[in-house]
Amino acid sequence: MAEKRDEKLQELIRSLRDQKLTVSFAESCTGGALSSFLTEQAGVSDIYLGSVVSYSNEAKVDLLGVRRDTLMQEGAVSEVVARQMAHGVRRQLKTDWSVAITGIAGPSGGTPTKPVGTVCIALVGPNFEDSRKELFSGDRKAIQQATVDYSVQWLCEVLEGN
Amino acid sequence: MAEKRDEKLQELIRSLRDQKLTVSFAESCTGGALSSFLTEQAGVSDIYLGSVVSYSNEAKVDLLGVRRDTLMQEGAVSEVVARQMAHGVRRQLKTDWSVAITGIAGPSGGTPTKPVGTVCIALVGPNFEDSRKELFSGDRKAIQQATVDYSVQWLCEVLEGN
Repeated sequence: MAEKRDEKLQELIRSLRDQKLTVSFAESCTGGALSSFLTEQAGVSDIYLGSVVSYSNEAKVDLLGVRRDTLMQEGAVSEVVARQMAHGVRRQLKTDWSVAITGIAGPSGGTPTKPVGTVCIALVGPNFEDSRKELFSGDRKAIQQATVDYSVQWLCEVLEGN
Repeated sequence: MAEKRDEKLQELIRSLRDQKLTVSFAESCTGGALSSFLTEQAGVSDIYLGSVVSYSNEAKVDLLGVRRDTLMQEGAVSEVVARQMAHGVRRQLKTDWSVAITGIAGPSGGTPTKPVGTVCIALVGPNFEDSRKELFSGDRKAIQQATVDYSVQWLCEVLEGN
């Protein structure tokens, strides 16, 4: 399993490198796990420039330019906030692509409409913007890891379809 | 070993919570590993607001306000840059404390004066500023993990001495 995760990550690194593309991340519920997963690999500074871990709403507003009214109306865990986070980090770090993650890793914080495991992920790139709302299961760490794996997989697919 | 790491992390969380303090991180060579380590724990949003993973020099300048001339003169792996990173993230996220990390996790990138494993760490808090240059050994992941553990330990000591 760990091997399969690493293989997919290597595939993502190769895709970005072959196409001379850079990426940045904005992470909320994964708290840096995606950034850490990538930077455990040596020599990725050509494709990865940095991340913002916007754990608080203030960080989403101040560092990523997420709109306060959107946070109020849609909640932090929403596709529209994920998209604003992705646009924000991409603009700040001037990367070709960005991935943003906001969700409820639990064990608390779930609601009937947004249960624990609800995660919104956004991808933004040149002439590209998409977001998805997923529901992952398991404990906190499992949800964080599933989110990281999903993000790597999705960005891979999009880059290879480019 | 994993248990001991977790115990020290719990001690840090308790120290911050008991004193009603918040913290933010600026990470370069650890690439989000410190943020991820903390946010694997549930319910830390009262003490942790966010991080900047400033993997590139541009991210250090644009997101953290590190001075270009300091980067040129001292290099990214220097105590003065670590201090500027810590001040930057603390200012951006308006936290009581901040920890900044910049170093060479390897396996490449070492020089005779800054070999692989050289890490500069800065702590900034209310009326407090300090930095240290350490040399950790092992492979990339070991150096990253040792840096995370050292940072947790050092912030604990400072908070408990307060």
